[in-house]
Formats: sequence, structure tokens, C-alpha cells
Amino acid sequence: MERLIQKIKQEGTVLSDGVLKVDTFLNHQIDPQLMWDIGTTLKSLFAESGVTKVLTIESSGIAPGVMAAMQLGVPLLFARKRKSLTMRDDLYTERVYSFTKQEESEVTVSRKFLSEQDRVLIVDDFLANGEAALGMARIVEQAGASVVGIAIVIEKSFQPGRDKLLELGYRVESLARIASLQDGQVTFIED
Amino acid sequence: MERLIQKIKQEGTVLSDGVLKVDTFLNHQIDPQLMWDIGTTLKSLFAESGVTKVLTIESSGIAPGVMAAMQLGVPLLFARKRKSLTMRDDLYTERVYSFTKQEESEVTVSRKFLSEQDRVLIVDDFLANGEAALGMARIVEQAGASVVGIAIVIEKSFQPGRDKLLELGYRVESLARIASLQDGQVTFIED
Repeated sequence: MERLIQKIKQEGTVLSDGVLKVDTFLNHQIDPQLMWDIGTTLKSLFAESGVTKVLTIESSGIAPGVMAAMQLGVPLLFARKRKSLTMRDDLYTERVYSFTKQEESEVTVSRKFLSEQDRVLIVDDFLANGEAALGMARIVEQAGASVVGIAIVIEKSFQPGRDKLLELGYRVESLARIASLQDGQVTFIED
Repeated sequence: MERLIQKIKQEGTVLSDGVLKVDTFLNHQIDPQLMWDIGTTLKSLFAESGVTKVLTIESSGIAPGVMAAMQLGVPLLFARKRKSLTMRDDLYTERVYSFTKQEESEVTVSRKFLSEQDRVLIVDDFLANGEAALGMARIVEQAGASVVGIAIVIEKSFQPGRDKLLELGYRVESLARIASLQDGQVTFIED
């Protein structure tokens, strides 16, 4: 997605060989029009997939997720990273390890929001080791629902997440694919 | 906002005299079209206020916040509830107590995203005791920026948050105002 790639080139900061900071438009400050355009792209990619629900994980997945859900005409569901006191229902729960935060968290979704009939598009801001996406996919499968695809804003293609997801048979659509962050430079995989 | 009030009447669940659960459209599952309509209403309320940035707090403020920011044509900034490892810059920090979660958290915003020139619209999903809104307002004022208003999706008018904010001179716009949750019933304040 050209506009996203330009934005990463202009505003992304390489913090190390593994970490790209994009807090000017995705992770802390958010560019709403870019999120809308991401939603438009995801709608065109998944228009024929019969999506009934978009699933993401708090917090940085919510903005692109809600824009995709709006344009697909379906609800957004965001997985929570720990139980909140007002979520008393039965929950689907998966443990997810974050390499960035170096901690394991419990990811939860209320059972009442996923059923066997659901066809779920998973959306997340980053794909690195695939832990969050896999956790969400396991939750969808716990519900007996189908994962129609996993849509990623920024994929760090030099980390193993994409291959793990492809090996499990998931369709993966990443809007920007980064080949390398070495020497402080962002190198993209051109499609 | 009539459509929001109808949605609360149809789907809200009163868990106790103080707690309203709206996880079917706002706090867990999200209705994107309703969020868009909330953004439209906030644009009309604050169109003349010279808003330069919308500020909210993760996670449930992000969806209404991004829709308001998009329609106002400004960035969204979401405060984080604790430091993340990739946020290394200088931070504005305030402590906020959550009565719902019964814990204190540290709310942070990167200094680089707020300046003295900013005119900030604060958006949040709920207003109860006002702790989160006050924490965000203090962060805006730490930056020397102006709070042009505090926009709330659902106000629990029987709790002290609104009065605290008004006493401090803030403009408060709540799209649904709840007078009472007693006896398992949602009673609204009609404007």
C-alpha cells in the first residue's frame, strides 16, 4: 500500500535491527485518514470473503480495525489483554507472549460475540513473531468460527510470524512488508 | 444523541446501581457506524473550536476518538495506561485511579505530540468520577496547550465527574446522560 509505505519512509524511526517506531501515525498518535485508507484496502482485499466480524487486539489494532469493519459493514471485536471487572461472562482465553514488552499476557474475548457461523478477519498493527495473530486465530477456532484471513498493517518479514501463519494455512495480507531494519534503514519487500 | 440512547436502551445491561455494561457496541464489540455517527455529532459540536488534536485514552476511547478526529481533520492521540518499551521519549505523566478496575495507573503521552499551540478535544467512552478526563486535561495543561472541551459518549450523571469538570471551567459534552441505574433500569436525563 503505497501511501502507507511513504508514511513509514517519512516518519518511521528505526530503534534497532528489530524495532521500528511508528508512533506518529499508528501506535500513539494516529492518522485517521490513513486508517480509513487502510480500511478501504482491506475491504477490497476481503470483499468476496463473506466477513461477518473483524477481530483485533487492544490497543493499536483498534483504529485500523474499526475502519476496516466500517467499510466491510460488520462489527469490530477487540480482544482484551487481561480480564476487566465488567467482563463476567464466559471467555475465550489464550496466552500470548509479547517479545516487545517481554511479558506474557492473557488475551480474552467474550464467548457471546463469536459463533460457529462467524467468518472472521483478524487485523493487527504489526506482525513479527506472530504471537498475537496466532492467539486471536486460536480464539476464533475455539469458537468453531472460520478465519478468512489475517490482515497486517506492517509486517517485519525478517521475523518468523508470516511463515508460521502461512504454514498453518492462513491467508496473510500485509500492507507494508519490511525486509530489513539493518543499519538504521527501512528496506521494503516490493510486491 | 438519539441513536446512542436507543442503543443503550436496547443493548445496555445494568450490572449494579453503578455499572452499565455496553460491551455489545462500545467496550468490547464495537459498532463502527455508531462510532462514525458519534464522530459526526462531535464534529458539529466542536466545528468552531479550532481543534488541532483529539486526545483519548486506550482502549475504549480509540474508536469514537478516531472517528471524531477523522471528521475534524486532525490527528488522534491516545494516552497509554503504562509505559511501553518503545516509548523512550520524554513523557507527560499523570496518575489516574480507576474505580471500575480498583487500581491506579500511570497515563502517559509523548511530549513531542503536544505543544503550546494545540487546541485539544478530549474524548472518552465513559464519565463517572472524572479521573481519566482530569488526568488527560492535566496532561494537556502540562504541555501549555488548551482543552477546548471534553466529549463523553456515556455520562453517569449521578456520579461526580461532570460537576468536577464544570467547576474547573471545562466545556463538557456528553452524548448520553444517565440519571440513574437503580432497580436495573437505565433512566436518562433528557436535554
